[in-house]
Amino acid sequence: MKGLARYLPILEWGKQYDRAMLGSDMMAAVIVTIMLIPQSLAYALLAGLPPVVGLYASILPLVAYALLGTSRTLAVGPVAVISLMTASAAGSVAAQGSAEYLEAAMALAMLSGLMLALLGFLRLGFLANLLSHPVISGFITASGILIATSQLRHILGIKGGGDNLPELARTLASNIMGWNAPTLVIGGLSIAFLFWVRKGARPLLMRAGLGPRMAELLAKAGPVFAVFATILAVIWGNLEQRGVAIVGAIPSGLPPLAVPGVDLDLWSQLWVPALLISIIGFVESVSVAQTLAAKRRQRIAPDQELIGLGAANIASAFSGGYPVTGGFARSVVNFDAGAQTPAAGAYTAVGIALASVFLTPLLFSLPVATLAATIIVAVLSLVDLRTPMQLWRYSKSDFSAHAATISVTLAMGVETGVIAGVATGLLLYLWKASRPHAAVVGRVPDTEHFRNVDRHKVITWPHILSIRIDESLSYLNARWLEEYVLERVAEKPELRHVVLMCSAVNAIDASGLESLEAINHRLCDAGISLHLSEVKGPVMDRLHKSHFLDDLHGEVFLSQDRAITSLMRADETRAAGEDHWHARGMI
Amino acid sequence: MKGLARYLPILEWGKQYDRAMLGSDMMAAVIVTIMLIPQSLAYALLAGLPPVVGLYASILPLVAYALLGTSRTLAVGPVAVISLMTASAAGSVAAQGSAEYLEAAMALAMLSGLMLALLGFLRLGFLANLLSHPVISGFITASGILIATSQLRHILGIKGGGDNLPELARTLASNIMGWNAPTLVIGGLSIAFLFWVRKGARPLLMRAGLGPRMAELLAKAGPVFAVFATILAVIWGNLEQRGVAIVGAIPSGLPPLAVPGVDLDLWSQLWVPALLISIIGFVESVSVAQTLAAKRRQRIAPDQELIGLGAANIASAFSGGYPVTGGFARSVVNFDAGAQTPAAGAYTAVGIALASVFLTPLLFSLPVATLAATIIVAVLSLVDLRTPMQLWRYSKSDFSAHAATISVTLAMGVETGVIAGVATGLLLYLWKASRPHAAVVGRVPDTEHFRNVDRHKVITWPHILSIRIDESLSYLNARWLEEYVLERVAEKPELRHVVLMCSAVNAIDASGLESLEAINHRLCDAGISLHLSEVKGPVMDRLHKSHFLDDLHGEVFLSQDRAITSLMRADETRAAGEDHWHARGMI
Repeated sequence: MKGLARYLPILEWGKQYDRAMLGSDMMAAVIVTIMLIPQSLAYALLAGLPPVVGLYASILPLVAYALLGTSRTLAVGPVAVISLMTASAAGSVAAQGSAEYLEAAMALAMLSGLMLALLGFLRLGFLANLLSHPVISGFITASGILIATSQLRHILGIKGGGDNLPELARTLASNIMGWNAPTLVIGGLSIAFLFWVRKGARPLLMRAGLGPRMAELLAKAGPVFAVFATILAVIWGNLEQRGVAIVGAIPSGLPPLAVPGVDLDLWSQLWVPALLISIIGFVESVSVAQTLAAKRRQRIAPDQELIGLGAANIASAFSGGYPVTGGFARSVVNFDAGAQTPAAGAYTAVGIALASVFLTPLLFSLPVATLAATIIVAVLSLVDLRTPMQLWRYSKSDFSAHAATISVTLAMGVETGVIAGVATGLLLYLWKASRPHAAVVGRVPDTEHFRNVDRHKVITWPHILSIRIDESLSYLNARWLEEYVLERVAEKPELRHVVLMCSAVNAIDASGLESLEAINHRLCDAGISLHLSEVKGPVMDRLHKSHFLDDLHGEVFLSQDRAITSLMRADETRAAGEDHWHARGMI
Repeated sequence: MKGLARYLPILEWGKQYDRAMLGSDMMAAVIVTIMLIPQSLAYALLAGLPPVVGLYASILPLVAYALLGTSRTLAVGPVAVISLMTASAAGSVAAQGSAEYLEAAMALAMLSGLMLALLGFLRLGFLANLLSHPVISGFITASGILIATSQLRHILGIKGGGDNLPELARTLASNIMGWNAPTLVIGGLSIAFLFWVRKGARPLLMRAGLGPRMAELLAKAGPVFAVFATILAVIWGNLEQRGVAIVGAIPSGLPPLAVPGVDLDLWSQLWVPALLISIIGFVESVSVAQTLAAKRRQRIAPDQELIGLGAANIASAFSGGYPVTGGFARSVVNFDAGAQTPAAGAYTAVGIALASVFLTPLLFSLPVATLAATIIVAVLSLVDLRTPMQLWRYSKSDFSAHAATISVTLAMGVETGVIAGVATGLLLYLWKASRPHAAVVGRVPDTEHFRNVDRHKVITWPHILSIRIDESLSYLNARWLEEYVLERVAEKPELRHVVLMCSAVNAIDASGLESLEAINHRLCDAGISLHLSEVKGPVMDRLHKSHFLDDLHGEVFLSQDRAITSLMRADETRAAGEDHWHARGMI
């Protein structure tokens, strides 16, 4: 994609838009809308916001992403983990239910939108790489546990709260005696129904004579069924009087459009959580988008995705919403339902807008416990117990990053958890990068090959030390290189030549060069020559720009074999010369 | 070194201590003491502390390092850059001259000592690698400029201050009208004399008949000469009355021993600067120590150095001092003067202790301008203008890190400068690590070798894609790997086999494995097999611990050549089979 189409992907797919695509997109939009209505209400609840904010966050953001995003099937909107992070961040600056809390949520959307767009324009999407797979999966598991625990109070009909597991457990324990029986019945039955409907509804509906596709779609509408059934139960049983918390009045109408205020004081308090929300949201979204795109042999452009998600969040901030991103479950449904282009997202937005206008009065008596039940069932599938076991077997260091992320997230909350995960991963990486692999090598008899002396039977010479470096030389391992070479040298008293075999050295940065220079000078002080062999072309070009080759007390050989042959021959000549003098009695 | 001797290097060198060593160490100690007296007073001034604090920081810390350090020639004590960082950190929590300021300086020594010792016990010395050569050199240059500028006010006899260049320039400009002529004369002459003495004194003294060694040593005593000359000038000219600022009364006696208070509130404000002081101090010290050790074919142990420097700083906090480290200039003098063991440092401590007891009354009339002059002359040699030019030619990215460090340090002060330098270096490194080198390869005709198709004339086949990956697979490049392989695949419509040539892959972490799995699944969806070739032994062992090899839709080949031969043969068989069916009219 070139020119304007790179920043406005709609110009690309819009050209080929036809009636068949319209039909598929509309169908997908209807299904996603049905799924999104209860989800958006529930996730707003999880974020500590009025339910209507969830609807608002599911209208304009979807349109913005449809215009600027590159995934054809990603379903953008409120998601569980980002809602939890919003609750944690907004809760740190204002009390739930206050106008300031709402403002903080919108400010998070604004900040996170600006950050994503900026990262996109600067092509800094690679920063998302800092979240390794073990860290993300640990974070998602821990978030799932935190979210499910935080919703237990709505199932029990008690008060409580907290950003981490100890706090949540403490408030649950101290309020448990106030549990409400009708709430627990509604919540418990909803959970049981929703778990069953995921697996059990489809076969049942098919046995009742429905086609597999229709059965699948009806099963997806399970949460909507739970919503209406429990609304009816509350109305008929007059359960509000018996202590069942309900959603209450949701304002009808389209989202209020307003330019969000720029409160620098608030922004300075929220920029760190906003950055974490941006990066977690981007990583979640881009992995779903990539997986789905690959299935249809399509491609997404990660840097443009940043711009698309940025625009979605800015749109959310302008229309009374809170941070959004591409959700996993909803995107898969969108894909399976046949969405062909991002237009499906725009049609979903129309569906949610209609719901905001016409459907909200019906939701007055919706029990909060039903929403909590949909959240619990959704997030428990995020808890992944196989990954830690696989990681333990595959790599202890990856397992440590995973375990650190889970435990810090559970014990100290989502923000600290992500930071701890990234820091642990980076620390382990830097630790490994600072001691790369290298080997003393010798010649495999009767060949031109050189291999590690510890693993192979090879020939070495007391006055020549050959070291193969299996890594590019960078500032992270420059100090190691000096120590490694000088220690090997200290072991060989008869040494006259050191050959560094650079076949695996793809680059040498300024610190690496500095270390090579230091090694050269120190060896020279000790009467030893430093040689290089098998230096790659681009590395050699670079070395020519420095003084290193002028100062080098040895030579650069094309191959390790030539290096050895040439150094042996020079020594033979010298030895012959010495013999000659010996013979003449001069020495 | 094993057992206790590893943590107490004195047990190692103490065994061989003899009269010759004692003589050399004593001689070196006398010379370093003469050099250290004015330096310690001057650096205390630079740190915004009473001069006596500089003396205190040059007694017990030297003894502590002598017991625990591994370098035989490192001279520990106050140094310029660390003094500047102390001034900046202590100045952020208290006003210069207040008791709180002094407490903050001691707290910095305590915190930094504890951090260094902890890093040593945890063997985390590799963290110092985060300071690349371009960052350190940029930081030192910028610090030199900041320090020299900050001392100008003492030469001019005016007030002023500031942590960064704009602030320093502003206060200098607004106070410049109050300059004091006698102060400027003393300061100016001292600077001129000290610059001259560095180069000009030795030849002059030798022409006067002194031996080269004696001439060298007398030249080193230049600052002491300046100190006494200006003291006499102040006394005889009654210059104090004419506005020349003098050091004033310095309390006589040994340092006060006291357990420093643990003020958690203060510590929480100071831990970041303390960490930066620790790491900068460690890096400066360890590079000097390594350079000097290599000259005599000795070794230092970096992790034990952390413990030695940590102990020195803790000792400083217990005896009314401030953060210390191994200084470059003083260590070189110590080395040249013939110091044989760390005992030389302990004897220097005795010298400074004697000076504290007997010499301080003599220093009452010492002009502050003289101390400022010694600082300016010492730090201007730190300003290095060749490095930026060399870096520019060698590597633009290293130059960026260097330039960023210099400009942020000058514009925003030392702490922000170090952090910006480390962050820039790490960001550039991660950016490069996230897009490593890889190449599509083909067979060099009539050989078993495979080379980059863009650089060599090689044979390729439309249904086989061979990719050589020149880097270990880690979470930083896992996403890149997926994109790279899938994009190359999208270019070849007839593709049936992808072979990843792993000869340069030294390790695959969990995220890299996840990406290989994703590639395998996506290729499989598209009817393409994924094969690996030349997988290293340890990597293969690791892969056997995962499910990857079970799920792989292709094979693992010992060499790239075998992979191609085998895949071609399989296809010939298949093609022959098809021909066979064609011939029989079945297709």
